[in-house]
Amino acid sequence: MKTSRLQLIALPDLPMVRPGDDLADLILQGVAGAGEALRDSDVLVLAQKIVSKANGRIVDLRGVTPSARAAALAAEVDKDPRLIELILSESTEVVAKRPGVIVVAHRLGIVLANAGIDASNVEQEGDSERVLLLPEDPDADCRALCQAMHERQGVRVAAVINDSVGRAWRNGTMGLAIGSAGLPALWDLRGEPDLYGRELQVSEVGLADQLASAGSLLQGEGSQGQPVVLVRGLRFPGSEQGAGALLRPAEQDMFR
Amino acid sequence: MKTSRLQLIALPDLPMVRPGDDLADLILQGVAGAGEALRDSDVLVLAQKIVSKANGRIVDLRGVTPSARAAALAAEVDKDPRLIELILSESTEVVAKRPGVIVVAHRLGIVLANAGIDASNVEQEGDSERVLLLPEDPDADCRALCQAMHERQGVRVAAVINDSVGRAWRNGTMGLAIGSAGLPALWDLRGEPDLYGRELQVSEVGLADQLASAGSLLQGEGSQGQPVVLVRGLRFPGSEQGAGALLRPAEQDMFR
Repeated sequence: MKTSRLQLIALPDLPMVRPGDDLADLILQGVAGAGEALRDSDVLVLAQKIVSKANGRIVDLRGVTPSARAAALAAEVDKDPRLIELILSESTEVVAKRPGVIVVAHRLGIVLANAGIDASNVEQEGDSERVLLLPEDPDADCRALCQAMHERQGVRVAAVINDSVGRAWRNGTMGLAIGSAGLPALWDLRGEPDLYGRELQVSEVGLADQLASAGSLLQGEGSQGQPVVLVRGLRFPGSEQGAGALLRPAEQDMFR
Repeated sequence: MKTSRLQLIALPDLPMVRPGDDLADLILQGVAGAGEALRDSDVLVLAQKIVSKANGRIVDLRGVTPSARAAALAAEVDKDPRLIELILSESTEVVAKRPGVIVVAHRLGIVLANAGIDASNVEQEGDSERVLLLPEDPDADCRALCQAMHERQGVRVAAVINDSVGRAWRNGTMGLAIGSAGLPALWDLRGEPDLYGRELQVSEVGLADQLASAGSLLQGEGSQGQPVVLVRGLRFPGSEQGAGALLRPAEQDMFR
């Protein structure tokens, strides 16, 4: 399966997303605005923030009461106890902490700072202190989007929800997949031949993560407002896998 | 700096690369073969293997004499002592080991299995047991390539050398940058405004790593033979940085 050309198209002029918005509808408008129409095997890469916003995953810190555990941890890392309360409620484990930084294993399995909770690019009103949580079930969001596109446009697309995540050993964030559907998030190439016909030794490729990073090249971080990237031309096999396939069990992890 | 469309073009019909080959020349032939010509701000993403091959970083295990340390480690991880000798000679630290796997900090700073040494896609002759090491100085290789393209074509391109690397917490390899030139490997967006005009909190982006992963979507792993990907349309600031900017010092690393 050789991909010879790939096009990445940032959908223009997407409106600010609000709770209850129909993302499939907004994306179809964006695709049309780009002068395109969806095709089979297109991959939609969605920034986590718009999915969280559409799903109403917004919490106002003013309504959060920190537990004693959250208060103690907040004092230790010098952060808002209400934020720490939310971080703990979204996490299964605190992986690392120091003043100003807390890295956790999110209940979705991904390891990231602040459980992915963030106030950037979140609309405030009056004295609001709104923050945005990761989607409840990003794989399900991806499946629903693919399904909607099939029902409305008759096309079989794939979808990835990405977030910008820090990582071990390396400076700088990279786009990683927190959800996916319609493609093998983890693509198993073991057994394929190398250039000289011998069997490849390694090769499970983090396909959804690589798509997440590719999409991130166009999404940018701040005021650019390009949360959806259409990836066209990729050749990949079908799959029922979600992004959970990318989670490496601790006992198999030699890179920590 | 908003990138609205990105094209990734795998250069077709590159010949097998051999020691001493002029990569710039091969790449220009490939660009022409794709019906294209290089433009300012094009980014060339090169698979590590072709750079290593052109640089003659091929070692025949038959000529390697393992040290006592290598022999002991080889017994422990159940690998060829001559390969372990090469891995140790290329590394500054053994990060993790178990039977069948050894993860090291390469002297270039990147953490990866087997010090990136691999026999896949390496041509053998007779009883040869050739393996390929990472380039000596991939940043310098990238700078030289950019310089050659400027001299021969009058264009200012950027370059990334990538490799498929395992990582902490996640299954599957991702393309990461082992060398770069002509772009900020680590792109500092701190201080930029968010959608609502507030300052972004985090944002140093691993630009070269994201390009490495994007390129990897087309390079594939095995017999596809598409080691060079032309990335066109990316907007980025100039930079003198190399890929070393992506190395996170241990004392700042909370993700291990």
